[in-house]
Formats: sequence, structure tokens, C-alpha cells
Amino acid sequence: MKAKKNIVIVGVGLIGGSFALRCRSLGWAQTLIGVDNNPHHAQQAIELGLVDTMATLEEAIPKADLIVLAIPVNAVPTVLQSVLDAIEDQVVMDMGSTKSQIISAVEHHPKRGRFLASHPMWGTEYSGPSAAVDNAFQGKAVIFCDAEKTDADARAHAASLFSDLGMRIIEMGAVEHDLHAAYVSHISHITSFALANTVLEKEKEGEAIFEMASAGFESTVRLAKSSPAMWTPILMQNKENVLDVLNEHISQLRKFKSCLEKENWEYLNELIVNANQIKRIIH
Amino acid sequence: MKAKKNIVIVGVGLIGGSFALRCRSLGWAQTLIGVDNNPHHAQQAIELGLVDTMATLEEAIPKADLIVLAIPVNAVPTVLQSVLDAIEDQVVMDMGSTKSQIISAVEHHPKRGRFLASHPMWGTEYSGPSAAVDNAFQGKAVIFCDAEKTDADARAHAASLFSDLGMRIIEMGAVEHDLHAAYVSHISHITSFALANTVLEKEKEGEAIFEMASAGFESTVRLAKSSPAMWTPILMQNKENVLDVLNEHISQLRKFKSCLEKENWEYLNELIVNANQIKRIIH
Repeated sequence: MKAKKNIVIVGVGLIGGSFALRCRSLGWAQTLIGVDNNPHHAQQAIELGLVDTMATLEEAIPKADLIVLAIPVNAVPTVLQSVLDAIEDQVVMDMGSTKSQIISAVEHHPKRGRFLASHPMWGTEYSGPSAAVDNAFQGKAVIFCDAEKTDADARAHAASLFSDLGMRIIEMGAVEHDLHAAYVSHISHITSFALANTVLEKEKEGEAIFEMASAGFESTVRLAKSSPAMWTPILMQNKENVLDVLNEHISQLRKFKSCLEKENWEYLNELIVNANQIKRIIH
Repeated sequence: MKAKKNIVIVGVGLIGGSFALRCRSLGWAQTLIGVDNNPHHAQQAIELGLVDTMATLEEAIPKADLIVLAIPVNAVPTVLQSVLDAIEDQVVMDMGSTKSQIISAVEHHPKRGRFLASHPMWGTEYSGPSAAVDNAFQGKAVIFCDAEKTDADARAHAASLFSDLGMRIIEMGAVEHDLHAAYVSHISHITSFALANTVLEKEKEGEAIFEMASAGFESTVRLAKSSPAMWTPILMQNKENVLDVLNEHISQLRKFKSCLEKENWEYLNELIVNANQIKRIIH
């Protein structure tokens, strides 16, 4: 049995809160300490039992064995630097959806080796402490980026922790991660945001959509409920990759437009047959 | 208790098969007779117990009390005309996703009054008899189009039937239906097809997507598995409305592109905040 740890979770929202719940269920933590600069979220995190206590970062770090950053990616570089400045040899992880800028920000930090950049491939369209879900990570993938820059003991510690959460660990470079994340996650959010804006623009009154909306519509616009505080920074940090995929996506949509305009039904059918190949990837 | 009917289902796939299953569960049918020009589907429909027997349209109609067309929308006008030519005073319904062309095709038919144009707002990305689901329609909406052109008794019969299925009946004109269907259903399919093609184009090897794909990605590309035999005709028949919404959607995506290119993060944030308003419509 592993020794219980004091775990500090910076950002007690959807991801941090879900991680906290699981730490508690698995009996890992001696004390779960939350850090959050939103007083309402801090209060909710206590009320919902996500953490045992809330503290400032300065108070929390000396008590911590493990520090997890689950805050919007634009906040990670600065907070991560402060954390690395303050730790001795504790392990520090982030859980952000982008990796290159975060890793670059601490590239030359003397405590760089204590940091492991991770991205658990789970989320929902909801946010804040009340969105936290127990056992959210079970069976999902977690990406470790540039893990060779992390000290062997810290890397092993993180690997053991995510394995115990039931996650598959995949290692890749930060550049590669950000490219693939644009394809499999970031573009889905943009299409969903844009689809919501399209329908809201076209159906100002909303009555007919409300009555007619079915599961298919809900499925494609669900992500449009996602938090701007989380998603604007992700799209900012992954701008180049996202633009590349977005340009391809607009060009694919133009093929559908052209088929309709030219009544080229044979090619329209081919485009749909080709899209059906996604069955190879999702089941 | 209502008298049991002989129900003929033309097209024993996703929609027709699901309707058949429910007729059986509710004990409505004396005999469920399937009609399908795909021999493999005909065999599956019997094996899966969707219908009691398969027949040709010519054999089935004289035995029918109710005839339901659940075939691709391009096939409906011709088959519907044949059915109306052959019936005496039985009730005929279709369940297609477009309505204007279908209704126009039989506008002057002497038996027009026996036909009720319906669109149950339910479906999945799967097709064929094996995709049929019992109790699929419960709690969903069904649209009746131009119902004032249907004889009062046939309209009341259809209303009673869909009410017993647990569906909310909404009446509207065919033109209005096709416009709203483009917004809440047809465009979702195009974005999903185009997203699948984008990702398949960008990620030729597929390994990374397979490993990293999460629930959010699956949600937005799920509809891309939908059948071309069903969807090419829908997009053909609703071309003008679909083009109109597709143009708006491409223009909404261009706003995201422009924000990224110009690093206009404030406007990007506004676009996401606006998209969040979809919460008013889906919960």
C-alpha cells in the first residue's frame, strides 16, 4: 500500500474537481487541498466535498507531496513558474489541453525535472466544481508530453498514479500532441460553436428548433456549451494548428456546397461514402 | 380497445423496423407485412421478428388497413403514387425527412386525402433492419405537414397512432418544415460528414486519432456514419434550404478563422459566449 499524500489541486473545476473526487474514492490523499481564485468555486468545492480545505498557493505548497494544475491554459505558464520557484522536490503536473507553450515557459527552470506535462483525454461541455464527475478518467487515454525532460522518479510517480486511475498512458512530443489535439478535439469545438451560432442566427425565435431538435442536433452542438474561459485560451495557444485544420474543414464544407450548387449528386454521394470511413476510428 | 389492423411497412430499415417493433410491442397489428426490394433486408426483417411476413407491394396493399412508407425520400414520390393508385380508403403515411417534394408529387391525386405526411424526429447514424430500436419514438416530436389536405378521419387515425407511441404532434406547412429541418437536422449531418472528411484527410494514418479521440470528438462526428442512400436524397430534395444554412455556417466558421488570423481574442471570446446561448435550446 502506498503512503498517503497531501495533494494540492490548483483549479477545482471540471477537471481538477473530478481528479479530486477520484483521489478521495481511491483513498490516496491524506489531505486534499484546493486552490482557486474564484471565491464562489472555492466555497462550492468545500460544500461538494471535492477537497478537505482551501488555501492560497503559498500556504499549500509547503504541505504538498503532489501539485496538480487544472486551470485554463493561459494561466498555466505563470502559475507553473511560481510553483516550480516554491517547491523542493515535489511532483508537479498540469492537465491542460495544449502543451507546447506551457512546456516552453519552464524550459530552463532549475526545477524543470519535477514537472510532468499531462493531458487526460476527458472532458464535458460543463465547467466549475459542480461539473466534477467521479471516475471520469477510467478507460480513457492520458498523454504525457516531452516526458524525457521529467526526472525519472517524478515520471514514474505520475505513471503509477494515472495507471491507478485506469488510464492508458501515451507518450509523445508536445509539438505532435498539439497537432493531433487540433484534429481530434479543438476543431470539434469550433464546428460546434459555429453550428450553434448558425442556428441561433437563422432561428432567432428558437421555438421551432426547440420543438424539432432531436438527438442528432444535440450531439453536434453539445460542445457549443463549453466555457469561453477554458476554450479561448486553448484556441489562442494552438492557433497555427487550429487554423490549418479549420482551413481544411472550410474547404471540405465548400465541396458539399459546390455539389449542391451544381447538383452533382454523384460526388455528393462519394463525399458521404468517404465520411463513413470514420467508422474505422469510432465505433 | 381498438380493432387490430393489418399494417404494411414499406422499407424495413431503421425507421420502418423501429415502427414495426413498436406496433408489435403495443399489440396493434393483426399482421405486420413488410415490403422491401433489398432481399438481404427482407430476410433480416423476418429473422429479427420485425414483421410477420414479407410481400410485394401489389400483394400487400389489398390486405392493408394502414400503409407506412419508410424508404429513402427520393423513392417516396413514385411509390406513394403507386400506393394511392392501388388503395381504396386505407390510410397511407410516409416518414421522410423532407416534405415539400413528396407532397407536391401527389397534390392532384384523387386519393390525396388518404395520405398524411409525417416526420418523426428520431433517427440514429445506423441503417437497415438490424438498426431498428424498440420504443425509439417515445417522448419525441412528430411533424404533420399540410395536414389540412388529409381527410379528417385519416388525420385523426394518424394522430391517435402517434399519440399512442408517446409522441408530441406538431403541425406545420411543408415549406416551413423543410426550412426548419435544414437548420436542426440536415446541416448537422453536413458538418459531421465534413468534419470526418477533414480529420480523415489530415490524419491519413489514423493511429493518433484512434488513441486520442474522446467523447467530444465522437459526439461531433457520430452522424458522419449515416447512410449515403438515405442522406444524398434528403440533401437533394432540400437543396435550397440546405445551401442557405450551409452558406451561413461557412460564414460563421470564417469568423473564427478571422479571429485566429488577426489574433482578435476578444471577438473570439464573444463568439463562444454567443454560442453558449444554445443552452436555451438544448439542456
